[in-house]
Amino acid sequence: MNKPLGKHLILDLWGEVASFPFWSMDAAAEMFVEAAKDAGATVLTQRWHHFGDGHGYTGVVVLAESHISVHTWPEKGYAAIDAFYCGVCDPESSLPTMLDFYKPIKHKVLFIQRGEPLI
Amino acid sequence: MNKPLGKHLILDLWGEVASFPFWSMDAAAEMFVEAAKDAGATVLTQRWHHFGDGHGYTGVVVLAESHISVHTWPEKGYAAIDAFYCGVCDPESSLPTMLDFYKPIKHKVLFIQRGEPLI
Repeated sequence: MNKPLGKHLILDLWGEVASFPFWSMDAAAEMFVEAAKDAGATVLTQRWHHFGDGHGYTGVVVLAESHISVHTWPEKGYAAIDAFYCGVCDPESSLPTMLDFYKPIKHKVLFIQRGEPLI
Repeated sequence: MNKPLGKHLILDLWGEVASFPFWSMDAAAEMFVEAAKDAGATVLTQRWHHFGDGHGYTGVVVLAESHISVHTWPEKGYAAIDAFYCGVCDPESSLPTMLDFYKPIKHKVLFIQRGEPLI
């Protein structure tokens, strides 16, 4: 049976404005490596960029199984996370580590199948 | 009025198995810079990884306005693209350049609003 090639987690988080996890890029970088490991994914490389005092960060973790990305707006208490894994890795396995780190007041989870066979 | 912080294009492409654009990582890297410019987005850095002969590539373009990512499976004739732009940049403006490059037989477009105000 042909299965989709990948599963994509789209995660929106809202938390306390200016709370720690929305600012701390280095801690987030460590957390996302753990979150990737939780799903059995392999980190190839990463790119992180902080937009300066009072602003958020962007991070991209390139995986052998696709990628994780995060963008934060501390001033809005918002973070947008994507975790796209192909193969047997399931981004749902990474979700607890991400939620435990950001401790959102509210979050929204959406899963999308990517790469369904062309009919 | 509070608006969502970003707009996220989720683009799935199916094309000729083993056709040029699914293999050529360098050409894709140039094209995505153009696609970002089409939307008025600013490229900060990029990461590209080729999985070797017979396999596809992964690319991530980190933008001042969030990111673009692409993953290709040439053996399946499939590519998964995400373009997530915040602010006034609209990923719909990048779509023609991407479609003109990959020339898919079939494609699927989904737009998601990211970062709606917490109610």
